[in-house]
Amino acid sequence: MKWTEGFIAVDWGTTNRRAYRIDSSGECRDEFEDSEGVLSIADRIGFAGAVGQIRERLGDHPMLLAGMIGSNRGWKEAPYVPCPAGLDDLAAKLVWAGEQEAIVPGVSYVGDNRADVMRGEEVQLLGAVASGRVGPDALVCHPGTHNKWAQLHGAAIQSFRTVMTGELFSLLKDHSILSDLLTGEVEANDTFRSAARYALRNDALPAELFAVRARVLLGQAEKKDAASYTSGLLIGTDVRIGLSQSAAEDVVVIGRPDLTRLYSAAIAEAERRPTELDGEKCFLSGIVEIAKRMS
Amino acid sequence: MKWTEGFIAVDWGTTNRRAYRIDSSGECRDEFEDSEGVLSIADRIGFAGAVGQIRERLGDHPMLLAGMIGSNRGWKEAPYVPCPAGLDDLAAKLVWAGEQEAIVPGVSYVGDNRADVMRGEEVQLLGAVASGRVGPDALVCHPGTHNKWAQLHGAAIQSFRTVMTGELFSLLKDHSILSDLLTGEVEANDTFRSAARYALRNDALPAELFAVRARVLLGQAEKKDAASYTSGLLIGTDVRIGLSQSAAEDVVVIGRPDLTRLYSAAIAEAERRPTELDGEKCFLSGIVEIAKRMS
Repeated sequence: MKWTEGFIAVDWGTTNRRAYRIDSSGECRDEFEDSEGVLSIADRIGFAGAVGQIRERLGDHPMLLAGMIGSNRGWKEAPYVPCPAGLDDLAAKLVWAGEQEAIVPGVSYVGDNRADVMRGEEVQLLGAVASGRVGPDALVCHPGTHNKWAQLHGAAIQSFRTVMTGELFSLLKDHSILSDLLTGEVEANDTFRSAARYALRNDALPAELFAVRARVLLGQAEKKDAASYTSGLLIGTDVRIGLSQSAAEDVVVIGRPDLTRLYSAAIAEAERRPTELDGEKCFLSGIVEIAKRMS
Repeated sequence: MKWTEGFIAVDWGTTNRRAYRIDSSGECRDEFEDSEGVLSIADRIGFAGAVGQIRERLGDHPMLLAGMIGSNRGWKEAPYVPCPAGLDDLAAKLVWAGEQEAIVPGVSYVGDNRADVMRGEEVQLLGAVASGRVGPDALVCHPGTHNKWAQLHGAAIQSFRTVMTGELFSLLKDHSILSDLLTGEVEANDTFRSAARYALRNDALPAELFAVRARVLLGQAEKKDAASYTSGLLIGTDVRIGLSQSAAEDVVVIGRPDLTRLYSAAIAEAERRPTELDGEKCFLSGIVEIAKRMS
């Protein structure tokens, strides 16, 4: 097997994975997504077996794996590359889990009395730059379970900060006193925007979250609006934190379209200029760039 | 049965309850606590049966019930009394669930574009005033699953604000990516105080929570400190929100001693003067005052 003849790329997260067969010209020829995330694999068939199953579906090619697969809960730990980190740095620090299976390292940041880590987003962020969708110096937001705000300089990740917005929303929806109120769809509607505006200017999130319930109980708000309102509070707070790092007028938002739409709406409320990019395309650009550096 | 001859008081919450036999002089003569909270009762034996069991243990007396027992998930809904609310207002709006069982209403606040509710804490807050432990005008903090910051004026609750600190800590401990880090005891130690100080001056809670994990992964903090550190971030944020409402130098903290100790430490870091009061004693003072108004 040779990397120049094509390979399989996997964006392997905690709860699901996406696998792609990339041909010799760097084009994606086949793909699938399933819920065989790192946590479910580790408990069951093990990673060597899981990799075999991917090859059964996409062919017998070498594999380049990114995301939580390289964490201490994954197949083999790929130590974080410290900021500033570009594609060359990631390619230089690949960790080999098997003879034909390389794992892309995550990125760490220590500075300003802070410490932070990412795994998986780095391929998308740097892929967006390598493919020309984003300039070498930019403020990028990558929504997900743990949203990343990254400052790019000279086509490298200079610093970043994580905000656990997606996970907080899930915790509130699945396990909290707000659970029965958060059953509706989140939409970037007036309710969402008004909550985001409030959170951009105020900093009392753990009080405002309880008020979601109080407002419904006292007839000040409707239950059907609670999910969009709560999401607006969380994402507005997230955007306030992220934008406090940078005066950049333009903000690139990379990720799943349903999430980039919400962040884009909140960023516009903060009077910055958002641009949305599809995370999957950026991942493919990034992973192909890393593969090129291996050939 | 006559109230002047003594009664049974119950502080009946969502997940547990405390029942007390009060004699004709207002002294507590017997008591018990168990986990028969509103949610477990409703699903099982029903409230009339649960009340019968309490009388089997504490005697055949009339009963005065406070807390979530009066919510829409409780025995019978006792509509909120709006602020300003004093003991006379609560006593005037008791709801009778049976001939000898009265439920104390909760208190609501609508104003400053906010809405808020409490159930159970009002008896402790007003009991603290009625017994002389707290003056008629005071800033009071009542930690619990949902911490209440109440402004008292003229021995009435003038306004209040809830911060869902206790519930957020539980969600993070039981269900989040931080779960495996938050197994230790929370103590008001240097780690707690330093996190509280940080949160008193900064407003990036959902970012700082993720950093708890990143700091441990990158060797910037020890796993054993994570619970106190996380609690310090949450309680420091809570205290920042609560103190932003008032310039009062003295802050009264009413509740369970393990929680008042932590809040007291964070309030001291904010250079205010905390006083801790035992919530159970304040509850007994308050419920006896309400019973007096029924006789």
